Amino acid sequence: MTDDFKALEFKNGALVLIDQRALPEKFEYFKARTTEDVVFAIKDMVVRGAPAIGGVAGYGVYFAAIEAKNDFDVFLEKTEKIRTSRPTAVNLMWAVDRMVKRAKEEDCDPDALLREADLIVEEDIAMNHEIARIGAKVIPQNAQILTHCNTGALATCGWGTALGVIKKAHYDKKNIFVYANETRPRFQGARLTAWELVRAQIPSKLIPDSAAATLIRDGKVDLVMLGADRITTDGDVANKLGTFSLSVVCKAYGVPFYSVAPTTTIDFDMKSGKDIPIEERSSDEVKRPTGVLVAPEEIDVYNPAFDVTPHQNITGIITEKGIIYPPFDINIEKIRRGETLS
Amino acid sequence: MTDDFKALEFKNGALVLIDQRALPEKFEYFKARTTEDVVFAIKDMVVRGAPAIGGVAGYGVYFAAIEAKNDFDVFLEKTEKIRTSRPTAVNLMWAVDRMVKRAKEEDCDPDALLREADLIVEEDIAMNHEIARIGAKVIPQNAQILTHCNTGALATCGWGTALGVIKKAHYDKKNIFVYANETRPRFQGARLTAWELVRAQIPSKLIPDSAAATLIRDGKVDLVMLGADRITTDGDVANKLGTFSLSVVCKAYGVPFYSVAPTTTIDFDMKSGKDIPIEERSSDEVKRPTGVLVAPEEIDVYNPAFDVTPHQNITGIITEKGIIYPPFDINIEKIRRGETLS
Repeated sequence: MTDDFKALEFKNGALVLIDQRALPEKFEYFKARTTEDVVFAIKDMVVRGAPAIGGVAGYGVYFAAIEAKNDFDVFLEKTEKIRTSRPTAVNLMWAVDRMVKRAKEEDCDPDALLREADLIVEEDIAMNHEIARIGAKVIPQNAQILTHCNTGALATCGWGTALGVIKKAHYDKKNIFVYANETRPRFQGARLTAWELVRAQIPSKLIPDSAAATLIRDGKVDLVMLGADRITTDGDVANKLGTFSLSVVCKAYGVPFYSVAPTTTIDFDMKSGKDIPIEERSSDEVKRPTGVLVAPEEIDVYNPAFDVTPHQNITGIITEKGIIYPPFDINIEKIRRGETLS
Repeated sequence: MTDDFKALEFKNGALVLIDQRALPEKFEYFKARTTEDVVFAIKDMVVRGAPAIGGVAGYGVYFAAIEAKNDFDVFLEKTEKIRTSRPTAVNLMWAVDRMVKRAKEEDCDPDALLREADLIVEEDIAMNHEIARIGAKVIPQNAQILTHCNTGALATCGWGTALGVIKKAHYDKKNIFVYANETRPRFQGARLTAWELVRAQIPSKLIPDSAAATLIRDGKVDLVMLGADRITTDGDVANKLGTFSLSVVCKAYGVPFYSVAPTTTIDFDMKSGKDIPIEERSSDEVKRPTGVLVAPEEIDVYNPAFDVTPHQNITGIITEKGIIYPPFDINIEKIRRGETLS
């Protein structure tokens, strides 16, 4: 019950990433050896998925410490570039802040920072396993599960968040069936989730995002399970574009809707989803899927990478510390205080 | 206030179609001179859009009459191939049935059938104008309108249904703004609607289908207006995949949702949308957008071309005979009886 690949791995002084831009056609590695490489890998989506970005950012700060040669201002300048390489996933900011704090404690010692970066990865792997164990409870035998974007091994340092729970249900022989939304505009569902599903031999179908609503209405989906890029203290969730629409349909037809994420995805400094900055990406992602133009050059495009699902539409948020159910604000406060969820 | 192109035109013995598979990159014509050409053009989506398919089918039956050389069985066999070339749009069946009825009356006289096919087109053009006049009432000044798939001149014999109403609002100087859903998997919104919007110089933006929900929630959409491929007597509407999902979000956030179609799109023999046959198309439309593979070859695909929106989610159906409001069953019965809508 493990994947035979790792989205990121530190080896011989380099951060080795599976180049997710090339999948599923080609399985290639991208080696990052500098802060600049790390910033490029995050911005250009060589690596994506909030927890994986957090893991990569840790090593980025390690590279920054080496490059800065004990000039702390230069170090901070470089870490800021990593911190702002994408705006929505809070794990990125969380990982950089944690690394910078460590740098201050350890006088920017690269060895200490490498250990800290490794630790972020190890913790994420452990959280993935705990999330899968906890999330398994909500998946019944013979469940038909719909997922969106990619939340598997490629999106994390371990084996995944939502897709990790789904994989565990499969390995636990629950006879599940998975519908994977293709996830326009970048096709992470088609490129990455379908690739992981085929590789894990999980019975599944790929669908256009718009087909989900009919499946949900017609009783073909027992539950929706997907990831999160940022969770506010009210329990609102920013996630890949398309998540909110699914949540509205699930609510209308009484289908459980679960968000799955490590607690590092919670932004304890933000109350409402309305305040989450939403990254707007290039119009070419819409106008040129696969690089080929499908629209007139002259047309304007609105291409938000994420949307915000209000907590009212969410059944539960599955974390390594338990499943957060409503009232979300009270239960998220319990997590902040280190209290046990009831 | 006219378009400078026609989706279909009969000239010098040939049915000349704009090849919609090539847009927006290339503006090419496809000439159909046989029943076989017509069946190919419908199946392969050289032409699409329920009213345009109806228009094309009329000429197909004319070709069938010539080819059958007074053998009525051969004629019926050929017309049946046209009638079954796609399963969902009722205008196709309606046009073929009308032509076959005329053939019986006129002993398969090609000249009479050519006149009947021309008449179908002329009537559709007239209906388009009447629909635009009637639909204009529901579009307020400064309206932000969201549309899906293509319902313009390319989808009809005239200047469009939903997009026809939208164009009229623009020419009436209502200062409108249009959001066009790209419409996966075949990108009719990106390829065709965006092309018509740019050509008509209507302020607009192209969006991934999943971005619509956030715009609707956030008050950026005053109304949704789109087409129909079949309307049942209960008022349920089959339309391009993605329509149903939009209707659920509109209902949840109180945004008016209009379907626009000529009354030839009403299937008076079918009560509930549950009975509408939904065409399932090739997995390659999902796996190979623009021909380039974006998913593992091994993954299964579910690719329904249409979905069904229950009448409970529809504000009104705009037709050339007036706007059908709830109770839909009673008002559609009035249309069947030739009574005036109140």
